[in-house]
Amino acid sequence: MKKYVIGLDYGSDSARALVVNANTGEILATSVKYYPRWKKGLYCDPKTNQWRQHPKDYLEVLEATVTDALSQCAKDVAENVVGIAFDTTGSTPAFTDENGTPLAMLPEFAENPNAMFVLWKDHTAVKEAEEINEACAKSDVNYIKYEGGIYSAEWYWAKALHILREDPEVAKRAYSIVEYCEWLPAVLTGVKSSKDIIRSRCACGHKAMWHEEWGGLPPEEFLTSIDKKLSGFRDRLFTTTETADKPVGHLCKEWAQRLGLNENVIVAGGAYDCHMGAVGAGVTPHTLVRVIGTSTCDVMVASYDEIGSKCIKGICGQVDGSVIPGMVGLEAGQSSFGDVYAMFRRILEYPVRSILPQTAENKLSKEEVDKIIEDTCDRIIVKLTEDAEKIPVSESTMIATDWINGRRTPDANQMLKGTIAGFTLGTTAPLIFRALVEATAYGTKAIVDRFENEGIVIDNVIGIGGIALKSPFVMQTMCDVINKPIKVCNTDQACALGAAMFAATAAGVYAKVEDAIQHMNSGFSKEYKPNPENVKLYSEIYKKYSTLGEFTEKQLFNE
Amino acid sequence: MKKYVIGLDYGSDSARALVVNANTGEILATSVKYYPRWKKGLYCDPKTNQWRQHPKDYLEVLEATVTDALSQCAKDVAENVVGIAFDTTGSTPAFTDENGTPLAMLPEFAENPNAMFVLWKDHTAVKEAEEINEACAKSDVNYIKYEGGIYSAEWYWAKALHILREDPEVAKRAYSIVEYCEWLPAVLTGVKSSKDIIRSRCACGHKAMWHEEWGGLPPEEFLTSIDKKLSGFRDRLFTTTETADKPVGHLCKEWAQRLGLNENVIVAGGAYDCHMGAVGAGVTPHTLVRVIGTSTCDVMVASYDEIGSKCIKGICGQVDGSVIPGMVGLEAGQSSFGDVYAMFRRILEYPVRSILPQTAENKLSKEEVDKIIEDTCDRIIVKLTEDAEKIPVSESTMIATDWINGRRTPDANQMLKGTIAGFTLGTTAPLIFRALVEATAYGTKAIVDRFENEGIVIDNVIGIGGIALKSPFVMQTMCDVINKPIKVCNTDQACALGAAMFAATAAGVYAKVEDAIQHMNSGFSKEYKPNPENVKLYSEIYKKYSTLGEFTEKQLFNE
Repeated sequence: MKKYVIGLDYGSDSARALVVNANTGEILATSVKYYPRWKKGLYCDPKTNQWRQHPKDYLEVLEATVTDALSQCAKDVAENVVGIAFDTTGSTPAFTDENGTPLAMLPEFAENPNAMFVLWKDHTAVKEAEEINEACAKSDVNYIKYEGGIYSAEWYWAKALHILREDPEVAKRAYSIVEYCEWLPAVLTGVKSSKDIIRSRCACGHKAMWHEEWGGLPPEEFLTSIDKKLSGFRDRLFTTTETADKPVGHLCKEWAQRLGLNENVIVAGGAYDCHMGAVGAGVTPHTLVRVIGTSTCDVMVASYDEIGSKCIKGICGQVDGSVIPGMVGLEAGQSSFGDVYAMFRRILEYPVRSILPQTAENKLSKEEVDKIIEDTCDRIIVKLTEDAEKIPVSESTMIATDWINGRRTPDANQMLKGTIAGFTLGTTAPLIFRALVEATAYGTKAIVDRFENEGIVIDNVIGIGGIALKSPFVMQTMCDVINKPIKVCNTDQACALGAAMFAATAAGVYAKVEDAIQHMNSGFSKEYKPNPENVKLYSEIYKKYSTLGEFTEKQLFNE
Repeated sequence: MKKYVIGLDYGSDSARALVVNANTGEILATSVKYYPRWKKGLYCDPKTNQWRQHPKDYLEVLEATVTDALSQCAKDVAENVVGIAFDTTGSTPAFTDENGTPLAMLPEFAENPNAMFVLWKDHTAVKEAEEINEACAKSDVNYIKYEGGIYSAEWYWAKALHILREDPEVAKRAYSIVEYCEWLPAVLTGVKSSKDIIRSRCACGHKAMWHEEWGGLPPEEFLTSIDKKLSGFRDRLFTTTETADKPVGHLCKEWAQRLGLNENVIVAGGAYDCHMGAVGAGVTPHTLVRVIGTSTCDVMVASYDEIGSKCIKGICGQVDGSVIPGMVGLEAGQSSFGDVYAMFRRILEYPVRSILPQTAENKLSKEEVDKIIEDTCDRIIVKLTEDAEKIPVSESTMIATDWINGRRTPDANQMLKGTIAGFTLGTTAPLIFRALVEATAYGTKAIVDRFENEGIVIDNVIGIGGIALKSPFVMQTMCDVINKPIKVCNTDQACALGAAMFAATAAGVYAKVEDAIQHMNSGFSKEYKPNPENVKLYSEIYKKYSTLGEFTEKQLFNE
């Protein structure tokens, strides 16, 4: 009898459901839906970097994506679904009441952004993150040593504290805190108390300072030393966390009905999108999996033998079982990647968007002009790529750094900015674009070098995400710069496929996640191999990247 | 009785003649003509940076501009013209025969680019310039110490040696060498022997290693130590040079007829355009005159008391009487200024020129598309200026260097390239443009600081040239950065007006050039005054410019 699983990937703007054959990994159906309130821009304020999502958005797309995906399948598929699993963005926490219900689900908080999920990229808690870093610096135990050593405004406790200070009404009602990837499994399994929510090893280990070394969350006195407003939460939260291969329960009656599934379906634990994406891409020790989009999220796993008692310096965290249970999950990333190209595109759009409308207005209708503007802007990156890849490595005089949104890894530094050097009378747009593509590849090499210098061997690289699939020029450049082969996943839904693997493991189709990877992986659509001539040239130019980077960090952006 | 003079300014692409009232400086007529052969691109090769001009081009535009300008005046003007003077580009030398005739005027060399004038920007003699620098380094006497310490490929001896090596036919026939600004006065006065050509203090002192300290040109043994091919020229050339206020003679019969003037007209000595431009702008000690275009040429005069026995380090030369007789003329300059903005404009033109033609082609005719492209590109700098000047100084995170064509002053270094630092997710085209405008202003400050650190006081600055007249944003930024008032000349023909002042002095209307300046100056159309708030901010940011510049010079572009 065939067994099916549903893998759910909940991103920043939209969610997708995959119906997958649990034995073969074959994807039977996909459904993507956008969060309706979010799409309207509700509850957000770009000026203050406030990004909030209503829990109802999540539930509505959950029902819509699953029923839509199932409706595309043969009738017997729904009744043979055995497991379901989620990955979500993170750290994306919300305050809950005693029942584990996010406060925005209560009528009195229905329109209050502080009662909603605080999306990963919300930056309202910069001050609170600083205070947490100061408290850690003073503390005998460094509670962020497994989280890369620098606590971020994007994370759990900073966001919680910011809202407790900001909103007395929410502070009064707040009983506990839940992460997005923990809440959806809790909802599906009908959890009625915040105490019963199964906590995600991935979320709590990477972002909430949870570690077995200090018996779970940091002690109450540490938390209240940051602010008394944090008093009491620790005891109401949790001491244990679970890896995502463990079942959190069965589908409750209500949700079995809403989704058109039976109540035997196992719901797996939740985790962050890139971590399940690494599994979906087939991560193994010595393989770096990169989710390459506007930024990158880089994930590795290391055996306990390999990592020993090491704390890898300057990455974004190392957590037992956050990716594959039984191994240490390692996270790193570039805070801007595709965003570097997008910035240059936006610069080049300037004459098209701000001058062309006047020069063309008497010759064409507004609609025609708008069409020309959009068509022209849409083709900028494609045309730049065509022209830039014709330029031999040796002909470029330019060198750039990729830090236009600061640097995440290695050694987080949000003060950094990007630099482009080597302008001459003959500098052209494709030459600059080529330098920017090389800069993002040098940023990759800095991460690879850090892992290797810290004793984590990297034999090969797997790319997933939009840029991995769409830009051979970027991928070949990266390959030549890091001098390692890079494979690209066949599927463009590696995260949801990873969730399906966790669903299959939790449902008992496989004994462990590695077995699910072996049977359900999508294979690779392409493999890039280093071009020895370029490898040699780039290894020289990389020294200049390092020199330029070190100078700008120490002497130009050091305030 | 009214007296008139004709000031002739011979630029890179065109020549202009001004008919000026010698008593008041009133400009009665202006005529501009383009060099006909040059305009067709003849004798040049952009790929090898070979830029040659046919002497016939010069003679044809001479006749055309003077007769055209006179035809615009009342009948009695021509008969009351008392003097005529030239400024030209330089170093723009040509080989001559025994008669002082440029070889290209002889039928057998009429189409040979090596027999023509080698325009200032010709870069075919890079190797020869290096050899001259090496010879100077080995020599007991440093023959380039009054020329800034680095001999350029754009100068007299490098160009001469390159052609002697390149072209045996020309080498065989070459008897002497003449600069453009020396040849035209010689032609007008009917000189029949190369020995009788009056040599320009300005040209020979700044570019031919002529100095009284070593009795004129460097000794024969020094020249032949560079290459035996230079043997014999020194004795056939000259030992004395003259300032441009001295008459070189009267109009000869032939040219009096061709120009419609009488034979009593005094022809003054020649000089380089920026030097006469400084006079036309009203240069005095402690005033920096800047000709601001694609690059800048910066000219000062210093009294012998002020300069004493100093060699000003890292400028482009200091020559007794090269600007105003009786004072030391000092030359400096930025090797790119308007070219920095032009480079950015060209980068921004990329989508308009390379994508728009396809996206618009079915909606408009080719002619209409071309018109939109040109109109859009033509407005880029104007629109950037509008948007950039709205950005408060304190809001920009960017810092750039202006060395996209190397650096001329202070301390010439052709290896340097430009850098832009401070890119963020929010970087826009106007922010970059603002940084580039600031960079060119910082480049100005570096020159001003060098003069002042070497003991040459600068009280105020006079701007002439296209950018000085057309861009208040650039001029105000420069003013705030250097923290000195900047005046802009009323006339856009300061060089030709300067030539008219020399003509009036040579013709005896005035006893000295300073008197001509006093009576004939055009006044100022505008004065910029430093904004104290911006002065303070820029003085801080300038430190970063220096730091960035020093780093890129020592560590990035040091090969």
